Amino acid sequence: MNAPEKLPLFELSTWSTRQLADVEQALSRWVACPSGAPAPAGLGDAMRYAVLDGGKRLRPLLVMAACEAVGGNAQAALRSACAVELIHAYSLVHDDMPCMDNDVLRRGKPTVHVKFGQAQALLAGDALQALAFELLTPEDDSVSAATQAALCRMLALAAGFQGMAGGQAIDLASVGKPLSSEQLHEMHRLKTGALLQASVMMGAACGSIGAATQSALRDYGAAVGLAFQVVDDILDVTADSATLGKTAGKDAAQDKPTFVSLMGLDASRDYAQKLLAQALASLKASGLKNTDALSALADMLVNRSA
Amino acid sequence: MNAPEKLPLFELSTWSTRQLADVEQALSRWVACPSGAPAPAGLGDAMRYAVLDGGKRLRPLLVMAACEAVGGNAQAALRSACAVELIHAYSLVHDDMPCMDNDVLRRGKPTVHVKFGQAQALLAGDALQALAFELLTPEDDSVSAATQAALCRMLALAAGFQGMAGGQAIDLASVGKPLSSEQLHEMHRLKTGALLQASVMMGAACGSIGAATQSALRDYGAAVGLAFQVVDDILDVTADSATLGKTAGKDAAQDKPTFVSLMGLDASRDYAQKLLAQALASLKASGLKNTDALSALADMLVNRSA
Repeated sequence: MNAPEKLPLFELSTWSTRQLADVEQALSRWVACPSGAPAPAGLGDAMRYAVLDGGKRLRPLLVMAACEAVGGNAQAALRSACAVELIHAYSLVHDDMPCMDNDVLRRGKPTVHVKFGQAQALLAGDALQALAFELLTPEDDSVSAATQAALCRMLALAAGFQGMAGGQAIDLASVGKPLSSEQLHEMHRLKTGALLQASVMMGAACGSIGAATQSALRDYGAAVGLAFQVVDDILDVTADSATLGKTAGKDAAQDKPTFVSLMGLDASRDYAQKLLAQALASLKASGLKNTDALSALADMLVNRSA
Repeated sequence: MNAPEKLPLFELSTWSTRQLADVEQALSRWVACPSGAPAPAGLGDAMRYAVLDGGKRLRPLLVMAACEAVGGNAQAALRSACAVELIHAYSLVHDDMPCMDNDVLRRGKPTVHVKFGQAQALLAGDALQALAFELLTPEDDSVSAATQAALCRMLALAAGFQGMAGGQAIDLASVGKPLSSEQLHEMHRLKTGALLQASVMMGAACGSIGAATQSALRDYGAAVGLAFQVVDDILDVTADSATLGKTAGKDAAQDKPTFVSLMGLDASRDYAQKLLAQALASLKASGLKNTDALSALADMLVNRSA
């Protein structure tokens, strides 16, 4: 009798490297010039600087992993992966501006407005948002019209006042004010959670799934989105700036309410693990088989050190 | 024998009043809360302030007129009309900010950043852009998926680096520099022309037309878009601030290249009339019958006094 054949272990780093090769190549091509002429008067340089050569690409990876789980249209997923990353990139450009967080460094490099001036940074962010929707609506028949429309809607909701921009507005209004646990959750659900969850759901929308699976993936996305922020708050206290690639201890210095300031460090760590368990349970409940990448991403996200 | 029955003359003001009743009502409803909860933390107030109760609504009127000419889906046109106006409104909010034009008054009222602060103005602009794409992608079946996708693509192209944002970048780079006639045309083709032309083409995309008609309407849109800017440059010199509702003589004061500075006042006036003739000829070439509104809008646009 032979020993049972061992299944190959899923290697997140191998999987991510393969996915990101496609995503980086697509971003390079599309941010340079998706169709027609390149961006004029330095705008293209500012857009590329904001997007290329940096970032963990967590949102694109969630899109690709969700598409893989549902066996969806890879071309639609690649476009979605780039689109969510463009929205994320534009939000960083605008957030870093003097009237918002006034950050001069990001990923160890001067921020876009430091390098290109505030006006160009404002325009580059605006143009990146438009480009995200352009990528989702190719003229060829690689992505069905129904999928294009659904993806645009999901991205618009996640980026707008009911999502990221709304969360930013709550953030603005909350500096120096005590927030209840409920308010803090609501702020992060919108500010970072909505786009992370949309990444999962847009990947899933590249395939065809039933309502129960959709609902389970939505729960997974919500848990992962929230866990991401809880861990961010923990790392802001426990990691140093060099490891983070951004200024550590900034939240406390700016008197921003965080999960750590609200519930303490140990309880925050427990909470992150609880959210990870929830995310994994939702994956199981989805009934999908091919969830290795989604599961490993949730684990990485919660147990990361930077 | 009876006298030949007289056709009723087309009354632009009557037509516009009727269209704008629908558009204003839709904007009020959708900018307040298109679906789900209203915008949090003052963001909704800033968005509504930026959009409601002001503006000539020229772009929405072009959408409605083009849809009428092709006998298109009125619901799709109404959504498109609001979407182009949201893009226009967001661009004004961002343009007025201190790092761009630093304007404190618009339509006789404090600009959004003066009233709500720069951070909120930045966010309101960002959220208005996202909302435009949300409006174009309703979940119900009032607009076909193919039309939704086409409208999103047209709007993204017109708003982004190949359109409005690209034109702004050229504008930024051109202050105090002599521009050739070709460069000035290119700047305005992108900065204002692209969204005006897209308004026409989005209205037309609400119906079903052949390639020749589409091409003729594209020519109409290009002529009207350019004429709009030529007339703007003329009025900046000839009208007073009270009539314009904005600061007259600003272009010259800021040493911005204009059609008047390039070709003089009389030649600019001739040029505007030539563009009007081109626009009307394109309408004729379109083969469409119901072009009264498009034709009257072109005439109004060129012969306006404010």
